Amino acid sequence: EGETVGPEIGRLLRPRTPATHKGTYGHLLIVAGSIGKTGAAILSALGGLHSGTGLVSLAVPHGLNPIFETALPEAMSIPLPGSETVPGYEDYDLILEATGGKSALVIGPGLGTDSRTRELVLHLYRDVTLPMVLDADALNILALEPHLIDNPPAPRILTPHPGEMARLTGLSTGAIQADRVGAATFFAGRAGQSEIITVLKGAGTMIGDSRGSWAVNTSGNPGMATGGMGDVLAGLIGGLLAQKYAPWDAARLGVYLHGLAADLLQDRKKVGFTASEVAAMLPEAMTELMAQTSH
Amino acid sequence: EGETVGPEIGRLLRPRTPATHKGTYGHLLIVAGSIGKTGAAILSALGGLHSGTGLVSLAVPHGLNPIFETALPEAMSIPLPGSETVPGYEDYDLILEATGGKSALVIGPGLGTDSRTRELVLHLYRDVTLPMVLDADALNILALEPHLIDNPPAPRILTPHPGEMARLTGLSTGAIQADRVGAATFFAGRAGQSEIITVLKGAGTMIGDSRGSWAVNTSGNPGMATGGMGDVLAGLIGGLLAQKYAPWDAARLGVYLHGLAADLLQDRKKVGFTASEVAAMLPEAMTELMAQTSH
Amino acid sequence: EGETVGPEIGRLLRPRTPATHKGTYGHLLIVAGSIGKTGAAILSALGGLHSGTGLVSLAVPHGLNPIFETALPEAMSIPLPGSETVPGYEDYDLILEATGGKSALVIGPGLGTDSRTRELVLHLYRDVTLPMVLDADALNILALEPHLIDNPPAPRILTPHPGEMARLTGLSTGAIQADRVGAATFFAGRAGQSEIITVLKGAGTMIGDSRGSWAVNTSGNPGMATGGMGDVLAGLIGGLLAQKYAPWDAARLGVYLHGLAADLLQDRKKVGFTASEVAAMLPEAMTELMAQTSH
Amino acid sequence: EGETVGPEIGRLLRPRTPATHKGTYGHLLIVAGSIGKTGAAILSALGGLHSGTGLVSLAVPHGLNPIFETALPEAMSIPLPGSETVPGYEDYDLILEATGGKSALVIGPGLGTDSRTRELVLHLYRDVTLPMVLDADALNILALEPHLIDNPPAPRILTPHPGEMARLTGLSTGAIQADRVGAATFFAGRAGQSEIITVLKGAGTMIGDSRGSWAVNTSGNPGMATGGMGDVLAGLIGGLLAQKYAPWDAARLGVYLHGLAADLLQDRKKVGFTASEVAAMLPEAMTELMAQTSH
Repeated sequence: EGETVGPEIGRLLRPRTPATHKGTYGHLLIVAGSIGKTGAAILSALGGLHSGTGLVSLAVPHGLNPIFETALPEAMSIPLPGSETVPGYEDYDLILEATGGKSALVIGPGLGTDSRTRELVLHLYRDVTLPMVLDADALNILALEPHLIDNPPAPRILTPHPGEMARLTGLSTGAIQADRVGAATFFAGRAGQSEIITVLKGAGTMIGDSRGSWAVNTSGNPGMATGGMGDVLAGLIGGLLAQKYAPWDAARLGVYLHGLAADLLQDRKKVGFTASEVAAMLPEAMTELMAQTSH
Repeated sequence: EGETVGPEIGRLLRPRTPATHKGTYGHLLIVAGSIGKTGAAILSALGGLHSGTGLVSLAVPHGLNPIFETALPEAMSIPLPGSETVPGYEDYDLILEATGGKSALVIGPGLGTDSRTRELVLHLYRDVTLPMVLDADALNILALEPHLIDNPPAPRILTPHPGEMARLTGLSTGAIQADRVGAATFFAGRAGQSEIITVLKGAGTMIGDSRGSWAVNTSGNPGMATGGMGDVLAGLIGGLLAQKYAPWDAARLGVYLHGLAADLLQDRKKVGFTASEVAAMLPEAMTELMAQTSH
Repeated sequence: EGETVGPEIGRLLRPRTPATHKGTYGHLLIVAGSIGKTGAAILSALGGLHSGTGLVSLAVPHGLNPIFETALPEAMSIPLPGSETVPGYEDYDLILEATGGKSALVIGPGLGTDSRTRELVLHLYRDVTLPMVLDADALNILALEPHLIDNPPAPRILTPHPGEMARLTGLSTGAIQADRVGAATFFAGRAGQSEIITVLKGAGTMIGDSRGSWAVNTSGNPGMATGGMGDVLAGLIGGLLAQKYAPWDAARLGVYLHGLAADLLQDRKKVGFTASEVAAMLPEAMTELMAQTSH
Repeated sequence: EGETVGPEIGRLLRPRTPATHKGTYGHLLIVAGSIGKTGAAILSALGGLHSGTGLVSLAVPHGLNPIFETALPEAMSIPLPGSETVPGYEDYDLILEATGGKSALVIGPGLGTDSRTRELVLHLYRDVTLPMVLDADALNILALEPHLIDNPPAPRILTPHPGEMARLTGLSTGAIQADRVGAATFFAGRAGQSEIITVLKGAGTMIGDSRGSWAVNTSGNPGMATGGMGDVLAGLIGGLLAQKYAPWDAARLGVYLHGLAADLLQDRKKVGFTASEVAAMLPEAMTELMAQTSH
């Protein structure tokens, strides 16, 4: 029962009505960034900010906080007192408390796989009742304890590239690529009362969910094969979740918009554009998609 | 006696004559920003800078000063020696002294509600003889001692969203929304020799003053329902006050221009644009408005 | 013998020939910036960078160095070991040594008037044999010891606004404005073997030199009446000096280009544009001026 | 056997096929930047990022790391624990380990010539088996021990301006300029099993290799005679090497694209544009070049 994700996905975009305010559009929390890799967290935040969500907050190691405050005036930061340069389990309670009043969580970009970080990620995966996007190092951490993936307490969207998917499944990257539908639906039937969605990145990103549905994306171009693009996507999907799009819709919309934003750059730039530029094009991609679907 | 604020408000914009200099256009002081929320102060400063005011200075916790100096080359900063990460009453004397030579004060964005901050805000509200914009946490602090609001020594413009207005008045948010005219004129007759203006934000922002006048704005769009937009508005109104626009004019012009700047983005971006982008569009909004009203 | 500075000044712009390299276009040294006012130094550097000079270096208090390195990738910085937050005489020897291999010096923007800074400025004024632009606080410092102004060892360009000129001359601001030609030529006959040029800012900026010539500028607009514009001008004139334009030419070209850059913004922005935006428009202003004068 | 490098060089640009990912396009490591000269490293990273390479990492002194993290969200950084403000031999092992999984190395921009840095550069030159670009201070260091240049273990691209080439060869700058072909092929026959390419910068940049071939570039303009342009070029060539372009192709393509990017700015900006602007135009230059050669 696969589907193709093309411009018609724009019908899912909900037009905004005047009598709304930032509270209507949710509050995204991002747990990301460690020393040397704060850029991944910044790019995720840009993806979230340009998704149209109401607010974005980043929980970050306190020693790196000035970097985030300088780079991201529209986001708020939560300097983690127990974490100097790497987010760790020491700040678990504070982060859990910070999920209060939030509507979605993104975890992983630039996180590293320090042992303190591992414990933090695994506990948040098991405990947080918000819909949650897991990317990058959060996936590498989950891959160390794959039995913890099943039956999460709330929807989880995993956004692996094929190498990360191989680690999550114990299969080879070749096997993942040979059966991308199979990989994207690997967690079918394993989410219990909840939902696990897999966004298997690559040309023709495949989106599968634990209910067995799958879809293949048609937007995007090989100029996107560069660092930081996945971070923007994680933040974008998180921002859509924060706006209360259903996980299956947020995943498909996010993947399509992300590729469309990069496609809008192609007239002038076939290659060499950056992830920041794709993030900055997301509003134009949404506007274009609304126009195509008569919003 | 309500009025509608549309493009005709542009007639209030005073054309600039050649024989003027930066001193002609005032000096705005902003007291804002605390750790994790410096972005709100940056956005307010951008609102002020793009309003056309002569100079903008920010009084900020000294531990956060490098963030502001890096992000805002056109603004000056005053690192507060007694405040490391949160502005506090320890620096009251210095801030009061800094109001010398200034023409307006904005207080509140990203301030937090620490007890030291509370004392600072309340004293400045009661003591400063400059026109003053109060936003965000400054309003939450005023709401703790609402009896201090009446009879200020100089004009005060409060810019609450409905939740903040509820706290200021002791009413429910529902009650505020049910009678927005009543809310915007809540302080009618309570300013003594001075003036209190309420800018009740939301779709159709309502501006009311203590003399009983009220006006409803017609510019703006729901893409503005995202973090930081209010910070830009506070800085913009402050910048107009600093240029010696009468408070009632500064409030109405500021609200209209803020919405118009966001409307100018709508051709390309229906949603997902940021508060920085709105601030950067303010000069084009002023230019557009001048053209429409034959300046 | 006054002249009007209009587009014909573009004839002074020397077309670049292919067989040149960055060494051909000089190296500008800027001594500027103190805590709270680093932005002025950044804006001066942007003026220098966009003038087409080969290299720009900033000598800055070491405690503020990260701000400059983050904001200005094209400029180099010289962190002053004896100055933590304010440039001081402790670093006189190092700065004098740094003038080696440089072709012009700008001093003043955002400098403050600390006693240590005063001594530094006065000694550099008397000792440095490079052409030198003095702006802002450097002028306020010179005004404390006006007898030191005469007979400098190399050309000096002073860029006061009327208030600073009043302090330099001991006259009132009213007297300065009443006789702007007289003010701009105040130092006539007082430069000995050298040259002192006065750029008296304001609508119709007046440029006068110690040989008695004067000129009045015709570009620019009142949207420029905002903070940081003078810092950009000082850096621009310094950048032209570094490229070996004669001081009288550098002053007139700099003033005209600065106004033209701001005029090029006027179609879209009558007011509310920033000094950074004017600096960024300098290359287009030079290109426009070259085209008008058939380069 | 000299050749001219014109638009036909675009035929070397390999079109991207859909089934590729960031790993396909390599990972560039940059060792650059010291206190006061971090900008050179930032500009090199921008050259690399806009070349279309998959990933860029910078090994930087740990005391300067926040500068890089703030300025470059798309790059990762490796804070060097043994180097506070200048990269040194103390971190040799860590850097050598960091070359694992990388596909090219750029060393030199903003490095300084501290004795600790010298040892680091010379060892990396002799030991690293990745293709490597050496620029700026790395060349000045090589010039101190020119006998170490011959027979490197992997391709080396040296990008001197004439003064640096004079130091590398022991000739005068005049002699270099008098025989630019001779200079560019100075290392002919001296690379053993490997390859040494010389990119002799200046009007008509000359590219020569140790096999005796040489080529002269036809793109570019004298507006490029300003600081940081060489840093961008080094990063760009490094980014092409990382994408597995042969060194001879990477050098010629890099030089041509760099000049073309600056030429694309000439309609609006003849002079005064910055190295950051040239880096940002690289994607458009590549796209233009692809179009001209019917990609």
